[in-house]
Amino acid sequence: MQKNGFHSRVTRCARGVLSGAVLAIAALPLIAQAADSLPSWTDGASKARIVSFVEGVTDPTSQAYVPPAERIAVFDNDGTLWSEQPMYFQLAFILDRVKALAPQHPEWQTREPFKSVLAGDMAGVAATGEHGLLELMAATHAGMTSEEFAGTVSNWLETARHPRFKRPYTDLTYAPMQELLAYLRANGFKTFIVSGGGVEFVRVFSERVYGVPPEQVVGSSIRTKYEVRDGKPTIVRLPELEFIDDKAGKPVGIHRYIGRRPILAFGNSDGDFEMLEYTTSGAGPRLGVLVHHDDGEREYAYDRKSSVGRLDRGLDEAAKRGWLVVSMKADWRRVYADSAR
Amino acid sequence: MQKNGFHSRVTRCARGVLSGAVLAIAALPLIAQAADSLPSWTDGASKARIVSFVEGVTDPTSQAYVPPAERIAVFDNDGTLWSEQPMYFQLAFILDRVKALAPQHPEWQTREPFKSVLAGDMAGVAATGEHGLLELMAATHAGMTSEEFAGTVSNWLETARHPRFKRPYTDLTYAPMQELLAYLRANGFKTFIVSGGGVEFVRVFSERVYGVPPEQVVGSSIRTKYEVRDGKPTIVRLPELEFIDDKAGKPVGIHRYIGRRPILAFGNSDGDFEMLEYTTSGAGPRLGVLVHHDDGEREYAYDRKSSVGRLDRGLDEAAKRGWLVVSMKADWRRVYADSAR
Repeated sequence: MQKNGFHSRVTRCARGVLSGAVLAIAALPLIAQAADSLPSWTDGASKARIVSFVEGVTDPTSQAYVPPAERIAVFDNDGTLWSEQPMYFQLAFILDRVKALAPQHPEWQTREPFKSVLAGDMAGVAATGEHGLLELMAATHAGMTSEEFAGTVSNWLETARHPRFKRPYTDLTYAPMQELLAYLRANGFKTFIVSGGGVEFVRVFSERVYGVPPEQVVGSSIRTKYEVRDGKPTIVRLPELEFIDDKAGKPVGIHRYIGRRPILAFGNSDGDFEMLEYTTSGAGPRLGVLVHHDDGEREYAYDRKSSVGRLDRGLDEAAKRGWLVVSMKADWRRVYADSAR
Repeated sequence: MQKNGFHSRVTRCARGVLSGAVLAIAALPLIAQAADSLPSWTDGASKARIVSFVEGVTDPTSQAYVPPAERIAVFDNDGTLWSEQPMYFQLAFILDRVKALAPQHPEWQTREPFKSVLAGDMAGVAATGEHGLLELMAATHAGMTSEEFAGTVSNWLETARHPRFKRPYTDLTYAPMQELLAYLRANGFKTFIVSGGGVEFVRVFSERVYGVPPEQVVGSSIRTKYEVRDGKPTIVRLPELEFIDDKAGKPVGIHRYIGRRPILAFGNSDGDFEMLEYTTSGAGPRLGVLVHHDDGEREYAYDRKSSVGRLDRGLDEAAKRGWLVVSMKADWRRVYADSAR
């Protein structure tokens, strides 16, 4: 932070006073340092804009300076920090859980939406609509204590493999975003996940995988209640939706959990539209970023017509709203860590 | 933290190996240092137990060691961090708001519970029961944006004075607890407020007054919605209760916002019972503390029979559950900061 501030001051002074040639030399250490923090980003306009934003808000002599306490950065999870194709990873967890629990529920063989899940008929599952999804959620996410649920998720993450990449789901986090999270924290930002996924699902791995502690995860939730079970005080999960942290729910979730407006928001779909709108409309410097999935070779290419992670209005309005659209293909040297992809 | 660990190790080694006389000398620096961090606490068993707990969990060589990420400490607000007599300070805010808004609501002169509020008839207000309180809450806490509400609270805190002490309410925070919050944070704890009061009310002053940022405040809430008002994205407060963060609601609120079980909990009333029960029942070292209001001279004396901050079951069960009961009279050298009281 100190270093950034220093370099930034040097750069700004140089801009005002020195000739172009001297400026180019003075700016060299700045570029080198940014490259060190974000090696998986290509040296283009996207990276430069992010780095410039961070340097501005951390430079005490800059008009763009923001005190550390207000450096709140929010990140969508599915499609922004890790992949979300061919289906949301939490949905894969649900389907696997139904299969694992099926022996204890013989009635599922003939009852929807379980019947379709067990037959591998995803169109049949989809046909059961929202009601079907709620039934699946209740059967796999409720009725146990929170600790039991966390244990089940943890076990699943260890054993499940992504159908295309044949790797654990937690391997499929984006290396450039991991670097960005660390870079922001090194610059005094507090990083939060604001996910449409279940808050108790994401919290199981957020600290280990992203360095984001449970108390900095906002997400969708079901109701819970406090209960002393067999003499042990515990939290029990109830089969009832409490909050959907998506679309206009994201600013509400941010307000409820964080209590102040972020200055930096990253998303990838129209489910993040209101979060970016809310974040970028406050006073002072603000940055909204959309990750565009345009790399079918290394990951997946989808946007306006996808049923998962649909990005349509965001693409239409990004330029007019001053939001940065990051191209996974052009702006990222690599997609996943520990991989040449 | 480093220092504490060192002193603690010295003390433990000394206990096992050295004679009593040598131990007494070796322990001197420890006592001196604790006194420095908590000067408003008298040097008795209560302070010793708190300091011993903190030294244990921060000493990497101790069996009681807890990694910093898990050092979660939760504090009730009313009656634990600041006073709550002769009425909850937020209730004083509500009554003042009704009076301030009355000119715009001529119908309140004849309509309960407003009529009783305007007549200063607290028994009349109480007689309207929960329904009356909800009406007052809706009239004073909802209908505006969150920013407008925060501004109103902020103005009120600047101008309102406590009826007995004639000081701003934010002056009536407990000096020993302020020291404790700072001491815990210096030892790697993350300090959270878990209040039965409104989360958006407490967040207005928590950072300035306690050093607790908004995202570390858990409290009762009303529903909110996201709305673009006159082109400005904002959060609007709705006249509908969402969550009551009291009694069995406190562990639920802790679980929802923080997502892990604290290791240290401070409360003062039976509304904090479940929070202490939940906190002190996990594995590893844990500490639950109740502040006992037994000092009518410097503050207020009340417990089993009080309608505000009633402490009955907690007093009965503290010893059996291993909870520490802090006597404001005996354990605190002073109650408020900037005061000889």
